[in-house]
Amino acid sequence: MADNSYVHGYSSRESERLADQAQTLTDLLHHDTRYLPGSRVLEAGCGTGAQTVILARNSPGALITSVDISEDSLKHAEEKIREEGIVNVTFRQGDIFRLPFKKGTFDHIFVCFVLEHLAEPERALSRLRPLLKDGGTLTVIEGDHGSAYFHPENGDARRAVQCLVDLQQKMGGNALIGRQLYPLVTGAGYNGVQVSPRMVYVDASKPALVEGFTKLTFTAMVEGVGTEVLDQGLMSQEAWEQGIAALYRTAEPDGVFCYTFFKATARK
Amino acid sequence: MADNSYVHGYSSRESERLADQAQTLTDLLHHDTRYLPGSRVLEAGCGTGAQTVILARNSPGALITSVDISEDSLKHAEEKIREEGIVNVTFRQGDIFRLPFKKGTFDHIFVCFVLEHLAEPERALSRLRPLLKDGGTLTVIEGDHGSAYFHPENGDARRAVQCLVDLQQKMGGNALIGRQLYPLVTGAGYNGVQVSPRMVYVDASKPALVEGFTKLTFTAMVEGVGTEVLDQGLMSQEAWEQGIAALYRTAEPDGVFCYTFFKATARK
Repeated sequence: MADNSYVHGYSSRESERLADQAQTLTDLLHHDTRYLPGSRVLEAGCGTGAQTVILARNSPGALITSVDISEDSLKHAEEKIREEGIVNVTFRQGDIFRLPFKKGTFDHIFVCFVLEHLAEPERALSRLRPLLKDGGTLTVIEGDHGSAYFHPENGDARRAVQCLVDLQQKMGGNALIGRQLYPLVTGAGYNGVQVSPRMVYVDASKPALVEGFTKLTFTAMVEGVGTEVLDQGLMSQEAWEQGIAALYRTAEPDGVFCYTFFKATARK
Repeated sequence: MADNSYVHGYSSRESERLADQAQTLTDLLHHDTRYLPGSRVLEAGCGTGAQTVILARNSPGALITSVDISEDSLKHAEEKIREEGIVNVTFRQGDIFRLPFKKGTFDHIFVCFVLEHLAEPERALSRLRPLLKDGGTLTVIEGDHGSAYFHPENGDARRAVQCLVDLQQKMGGNALIGRQLYPLVTGAGYNGVQVSPRMVYVDASKPALVEGFTKLTFTAMVEGVGTEVLDQGLMSQEAWEQGIAALYRTAEPDGVFCYTFFKATARK
């Protein structure tokens, strides 16, 4: 085949790349969360089970209870887990602010990409705390869209990202929550809070991340709120399109993209 | 003594803290730069020798030549090195764009906090390249003021930081150069370029960094351009003062501060 076969990609090579990228991010965020066999783990806010699969694979002997407020999401999560042949997860519907468990039920609580959607994230963490045994651990992982910066620098691209932050705020969430984990977890009454930033740095030497993170994860996510941004008049169509183009521009061979996730661990 | 003795600090405890902080940053940036005994190392742009001391201590057997364009800075650097009892450094005055060395003189070139001040950083790296032996290495370390973000978020604080970026640009420099190291070093003709971000994450669990980095390094640096900002009318006095106060506010017990340095290594 000619050289351009690489640029356009075979579908098999493409899916291999994406799998590489997913594995890179999984390692970055989850490699240091391993629960002992027999330990009882609560995943609070499992959504459609994207993190549940990783959690369960990394701790195959742990007894995981995954809850979500949405019956619909739970159905998807259950299906995913069944397809993967994972057997150590039980699902249960529930509201994170009043979960149907007795005090001290769990050895560990795991919360990933949940707090960003809540109007009262500290209260959610406070409500979870009694469910932990004394000395039990809490682990929280969140992104932070304000941690995104890139080269070439571009004002429209920055404004486009800010639109995503503003929209999430209007919906009662907080897209800048990653950097706030230390005060949130401390304020909710946990001890020994430690926060570790997990930076995704992408340049042309990392083609799987250029494709899988800069383009297909971050820029696609910003692009996804285009209709709302234009409907609400947050940016002109021209500026928005230039901003999105500038984000894709950072995936060129001389471009660079940076984003940071934050992981907090603490004890009851 | 009363409890407030900790808040106000003894001078000895204070200097201990600052030493801790300096050591933390030194480790973060320099721990993986160690040159073999007998190797010839060029430090291009040594300034007053702050990095020279670290470089020489980490590679006590290397033969280091440190150059700078300013005779005055060199004098300070020589004095510092002499005071520290370091004997493996030779100083020489020279312009980074036309240094007085033969081709292939050095095994390694080290450039730290220099490119941010140059209007043509890529050309500087190109000019240094012939001075390396084939297979010799280049190491570059730079900050990136656009990588600074914090909690609580504050618009005036962000604008104050942006003033620092704008002023450095007016002087022909680039305060956002850290994120650009990959394209710069690659563009200058080096091979095997690898960039590793070094993030400084500061929360209340790290009091030495709260004091030494958030307050005394970053915020003090921004504060230092206050006269220029106000003289040039880049911000109103009120907004400027609120911005600086908001930066100091990130050093309170519920505040968080993030900044990222970038380190590139490459081969000729």
